[in-house]
Amino acid sequence: MSLQHALLGVLEARPMSGYDLVRFFDGSTGWIWAAPQSQIYPMLRRMEQAGLIAGDEEARGPRLTRTVYSVTEKGHRELTSWLGVAHDAAPPRDPFMVQALNFDMIPAGEAVEVLEAFIAEQEKAAAEAEAHRDRLLRKETALLKERLSRRDPEDHDRIARLKAHVFDGIAAVARTRVEWARKGQRLLGE
Amino acid sequence: MSLQHALLGVLEARPMSGYDLVRFFDGSTGWIWAAPQSQIYPMLRRMEQAGLIAGDEEARGPRLTRTVYSVTEKGHRELTSWLGVAHDAAPPRDPFMVQALNFDMIPAGEAVEVLEAFIAEQEKAAAEAEAHRDRLLRKETALLKERLSRRDPEDHDRIARLKAHVFDGIAAVARTRVEWARKGQRLLGE
Repeated sequence: MSLQHALLGVLEARPMSGYDLVRFFDGSTGWIWAAPQSQIYPMLRRMEQAGLIAGDEEARGPRLTRTVYSVTEKGHRELTSWLGVAHDAAPPRDPFMVQALNFDMIPAGEAVEVLEAFIAEQEKAAAEAEAHRDRLLRKETALLKERLSRRDPEDHDRIARLKAHVFDGIAAVARTRVEWARKGQRLLGE
Repeated sequence: MSLQHALLGVLEARPMSGYDLVRFFDGSTGWIWAAPQSQIYPMLRRMEQAGLIAGDEEARGPRLTRTVYSVTEKGHRELTSWLGVAHDAAPPRDPFMVQALNFDMIPAGEAVEVLEAFIAEQEKAAAEAEAHRDRLLRKETALLKERLSRRDPEDHDRIARLKAHVFDGIAAVARTRVEWARKGQRLLGE
């Protein structure tokens, strides 16, 4: 049910349409949860039926409307109670680790190339997370601005730092993986 | 299709029954891919139909048999060609990051507790990965022994080091997360 909580977290900051949410979760935005359209629309319907979010019809031109969802009191309680307790870790399912565990079955040169692509991808992920961290610290992202507009100005710096810290962690993990992959390349060369 | 490749990788080392594979992938064995029984049996059927694995009936007592699967030539080619090229990264889907990104919505004390549980879990994961790494370096795990029994003795050390390195990386990521979480606790205390 993490998609549900990811949606509630975003909608807390800013009411959005299904279309906006699909774009938000398409995985290309430096966001921390990726979900396809085929999951988002059914989940929004279920959440509306459960009373966690409410849809408002909003005019879009003379004849068109769109539904904009916002979090209800019940949704807010569901989110904050989920946030406040520890949950079991997600089960391990990293395809790359399956690949690395079987590197002894392919020529070393191929494995080195696979690691090289992994390094490039992780370096990109680290750089993106660091850029996002910096935008958050400067309070520049649209979502953070909207969230802060409803919070005590005294808390703004702390909130920005807490959110930035999440992306700092994503970057640190990616940098750790880069170091690991480089050591793997050295092992393959032995 | 990573479950398919994870299964092929394991079955390359040792032919196993569906029941053995279910136990192997139940997530409690320091393994790097977790999958429930409800995924494993249908996947084995699909892989058998696709000619990637073949089932052998094996006697278990006077009247019982069980099917033991092994990798076919076609399955071996499928695995090694998948291993030899880089694949797109898995989309980000870590429920814990969704939780951390919304820590500003709950009392700091609750968030510190959630991080404390996360630290304990990551420290356990790191210790388990390190223990598994050391067993692999000593060539003690049953699966590695079977795999090595069919490989040139000259390669044994290298194969063990390559596999151990994967668990070294899992441990390094977990330790990075612990450090990150401790810094988060300090930020929450500010």
